[in-house]
Amino acid sequence: MARSQVKTKRSWTTKREAKARRLENIKKITTSKVIPTESIVEAMELVIQPHDRVVMEGNNQKQASFLSKSLSLVNPDKLHDLHMIMSSISRPEHLDIFEKGIAHTVDFAYAGPQSLRIAQMIEDGQLKMGEIHTYVELYGRLFIDLIPNVALVAADKADADGNLYTGANTEETPTLVEAAAFKDGIVIAQVNELTDELPRVDIPGSWIDFVVVADSAYQLEPLFTRDPRHITDIQVLMAMLTIRGVYERHQVESLNHGIGYNTAAIELLLPTYGESLGLKNKICKYWALNPHPTLIPAIESGWVENVHSFGGEVGMEPYIAARPDVFFTGSDGSMRSNRTLCQLAGQYSVDLFIGSTLQMDPDGNSSTVTSGRLAGFGGAPNMGHDPGGRRHSSPAWLNMIESDNPLARGRKLVVQMVETHQAANKPVFVESLDAIDVAKDASLATTPVMIYGEDVTHVVTEEGIAYLYKTDSIEERRQAIASVAGVTPIGLDRDMKTSRKLRERGIIALPEDLEIRRSDAKRSLLAAKNIEDLVDWSEGLYTPPAKFRSW
Amino acid sequence: MARSQVKTKRSWTTKREAKARRLENIKKITTSKVIPTESIVEAMELVIQPHDRVVMEGNNQKQASFLSKSLSLVNPDKLHDLHMIMSSISRPEHLDIFEKGIAHTVDFAYAGPQSLRIAQMIEDGQLKMGEIHTYVELYGRLFIDLIPNVALVAADKADADGNLYTGANTEETPTLVEAAAFKDGIVIAQVNELTDELPRVDIPGSWIDFVVVADSAYQLEPLFTRDPRHITDIQVLMAMLTIRGVYERHQVESLNHGIGYNTAAIELLLPTYGESLGLKNKICKYWALNPHPTLIPAIESGWVENVHSFGGEVGMEPYIAARPDVFFTGSDGSMRSNRTLCQLAGQYSVDLFIGSTLQMDPDGNSSTVTSGRLAGFGGAPNMGHDPGGRRHSSPAWLNMIESDNPLARGRKLVVQMVETHQAANKPVFVESLDAIDVAKDASLATTPVMIYGEDVTHVVTEEGIAYLYKTDSIEERRQAIASVAGVTPIGLDRDMKTSRKLRERGIIALPEDLEIRRSDAKRSLLAAKNIEDLVDWSEGLYTPPAKFRSW
Repeated sequence: MARSQVKTKRSWTTKREAKARRLENIKKITTSKVIPTESIVEAMELVIQPHDRVVMEGNNQKQASFLSKSLSLVNPDKLHDLHMIMSSISRPEHLDIFEKGIAHTVDFAYAGPQSLRIAQMIEDGQLKMGEIHTYVELYGRLFIDLIPNVALVAADKADADGNLYTGANTEETPTLVEAAAFKDGIVIAQVNELTDELPRVDIPGSWIDFVVVADSAYQLEPLFTRDPRHITDIQVLMAMLTIRGVYERHQVESLNHGIGYNTAAIELLLPTYGESLGLKNKICKYWALNPHPTLIPAIESGWVENVHSFGGEVGMEPYIAARPDVFFTGSDGSMRSNRTLCQLAGQYSVDLFIGSTLQMDPDGNSSTVTSGRLAGFGGAPNMGHDPGGRRHSSPAWLNMIESDNPLARGRKLVVQMVETHQAANKPVFVESLDAIDVAKDASLATTPVMIYGEDVTHVVTEEGIAYLYKTDSIEERRQAIASVAGVTPIGLDRDMKTSRKLRERGIIALPEDLEIRRSDAKRSLLAAKNIEDLVDWSEGLYTPPAKFRSW
Repeated sequence: MARSQVKTKRSWTTKREAKARRLENIKKITTSKVIPTESIVEAMELVIQPHDRVVMEGNNQKQASFLSKSLSLVNPDKLHDLHMIMSSISRPEHLDIFEKGIAHTVDFAYAGPQSLRIAQMIEDGQLKMGEIHTYVELYGRLFIDLIPNVALVAADKADADGNLYTGANTEETPTLVEAAAFKDGIVIAQVNELTDELPRVDIPGSWIDFVVVADSAYQLEPLFTRDPRHITDIQVLMAMLTIRGVYERHQVESLNHGIGYNTAAIELLLPTYGESLGLKNKICKYWALNPHPTLIPAIESGWVENVHSFGGEVGMEPYIAARPDVFFTGSDGSMRSNRTLCQLAGQYSVDLFIGSTLQMDPDGNSSTVTSGRLAGFGGAPNMGHDPGGRRHSSPAWLNMIESDNPLARGRKLVVQMVETHQAANKPVFVESLDAIDVAKDASLATTPVMIYGEDVTHVVTEEGIAYLYKTDSIEERRQAIASVAGVTPIGLDRDMKTSRKLRERGIIALPEDLEIRRSDAKRSLLAAKNIEDLVDWSEGLYTPPAKFRSW
């Protein structure tokens, strides 16, 4: 076939031309890179167009709140049917724009605070679900089949050339910007301050079309702050089990902790219980972790070599700036985070992920999507699975090999740490996940499972540890899970004789098998009992937000 | 326990102080960010120190060749025992530095050209192996437990402030730089040119300590250029099988192709055979792919919506710059690539990975590590597995579900496309991978498998297609593989009756089952028969390197 027969006549620069037209439109407002604060709504109506794909920064920490608020104020006659791409649906106006018809479809990764309302809006036909992603698969699609026409992001400071300083909260901003900036999209960054001299450049001005000074600083949630006051004796017990029966046993050197009091308890036991076991410099040296305040005592006690972070944490900035040997900081001395790179590291380059869940089924599948709530999972599935592409080894990874096949490979430790019951005495171990019904109601293509049972290597409850990686059948996995499921329907259903056998074979371990006395598991073991203790450990460098202060 | 009892007295700024000392040392050479070309060896002796971790840019495309050459010239009495971190060991001096004692340990991802010499040097004790990684897990470790003290990278242009323009070959440079720059490491970038005004900024000067104008442009390999002249009729047949039996059948919209003539044949059949099947705008729309010249006819025929690339490709720059609707380009009009983000997208956000191998065992495990060669795999394992963390769906992904379990999830299509024999009539299908012995000889912790059999969904040979995802046991998987293994030991061993049954059940398909006549599989179907045709398709925009020109 000759070339001329099949060759398409077309323009190859339609996106570039569309961008040029939009930039021409906005000249009535500004001829520089700076959009006046009060003109942002009008500016959006000029540079965004109906049916555009708009990626809006908003994850579980940092929000482009001025831009999202402004977008909800545009005229739906002018701007409608947007396809929104958002890491997290967190703020009320994130959904208002759908109610008003400004947007119609959403692809997202997490929707904790708005999960009930989303489910309702889908039912009412006000919102069309795209897909639920992990953060990084959503980022990936921005370069493949969900390329944004517009990116709306947030930074601390900008100069007139559009160079951005994101400070401790770099997070996902560079990734979102890159997808739009290098595909003739429009990039608008809200900033807290316009300045002549930036402390450092986190994102080059070449990538930014417009900056706008927000009417107030971007929203930033202290999401990873856990007050040790709320840690219970049971959580202390589970933390002791984990340190002894998982971290020590498998030589876990690098790890990620999820949000929660369970893992906060582990962090606070390292300088006390961990120290008494002689584990310093042996476990928990390298972290893919947000700057948890509860890690301060372990850092100060010399446990921690390095922490790389997805994002910042409100109040931790001065402490981080004073501990550059531990945290990533720039030439200006302030922290640098990077959600994409930390997710990559958390997936591929650490020994262990430990998290929690609201429900676990008999096979070990778990989900935080429960009745009527369409929550999504953020980064948990990305870090909470065995990455089949991993090829390098570490002692903990090799320690999971149970076969003598010469092609056997190691395995990531994926630990679920759950009390057998949630608040209000709801069992965590259930016959069937609510997520199955949620999937049906919202017409999802697959059930929103957070962590699949086949990926879980250990389940830790207040009853003991189930070493699932040692089980050799699904049936045995079920028995091991039931053996630590306590007085839940799943746990009550277990066969005592089988449980005894599993214990003999080391597939389950009770506290006494790990030389842990339940009576020792007391809050008094925590290296800090409250936020004030954490401030004290930090030599006053940690400055917790007001809501965490009780003094 | 009181805080004072356990608190460690230490400096928290040792890295920053070490950096300050190094920067002080180099003042005798330069007081700006620019190191004079002729002073680079001396500069390295002043800012690098024995036992440093040094990440040196050098992957299968772009090489910091001036810096690697210069490092091999330092005085080993001053600079020794470096721990090198390199995506690819490609150039002779990459190993010379080990022979001279300048470095002693290496962590890497790929070592094709030097794989024989590495194996020998390990045996001789001249080189200590760290680990073999995929690109992205190596990048991840740069932020966890392999943080570099020094990064040596390459860019096209710099200004005096250290801002870098990387042009089409951004690749992994920003990721390597970020790891060092934000952990008080030293970053040195070689550039082809120092200029007052950059076309755009790819990496901010805040991240760069020094730039040095190289004595010649950095090495850049046209690694993804395949001359259609070398594509055989058998490869055309396999490409037809793949288009019909995999891409069409499963509605593959987004994909990655590995290097090779097999996949080049697919690219060149889209505008001819693919067109005749009416598949345009149905399959192969979104690509995570280097800018393969053999994709030009498909692009020009309107098949391709979008290509995001790991790196550039020599000679493709003008073509790419003229096709911004398809490729990622910056505000200056030139291409932007990003190896980290493209690997992420290639892992999580495409339907299919297709690659080739040198050996496949009866279970479908494959490796390009063969006798005496310690090659590594670059990105193949990352893209060639089913990412357990994926949660969003696509038609192809859902099409892999064979179960009615409500928790069933989709699956990435991982296709191995191999002729049953390599050159010199060596069988590809073997009883046991050479990699097992290589692992023993080099004392590797695990066998270097490229793609695990459990991840492979399809095997395509000139005999037909084995739909491995449909098999329900390892035994059946073995039979399916044997059924398409031709006259290799594995293939000859197959049971004819079983093969017939597998065919009836649709687990294997022969060309005739897909309505493909072997006699139709001719080179004449290729949309371009040689490089000159590709240039013609590109309207003269593609400017192939001299070695590919025959006119």
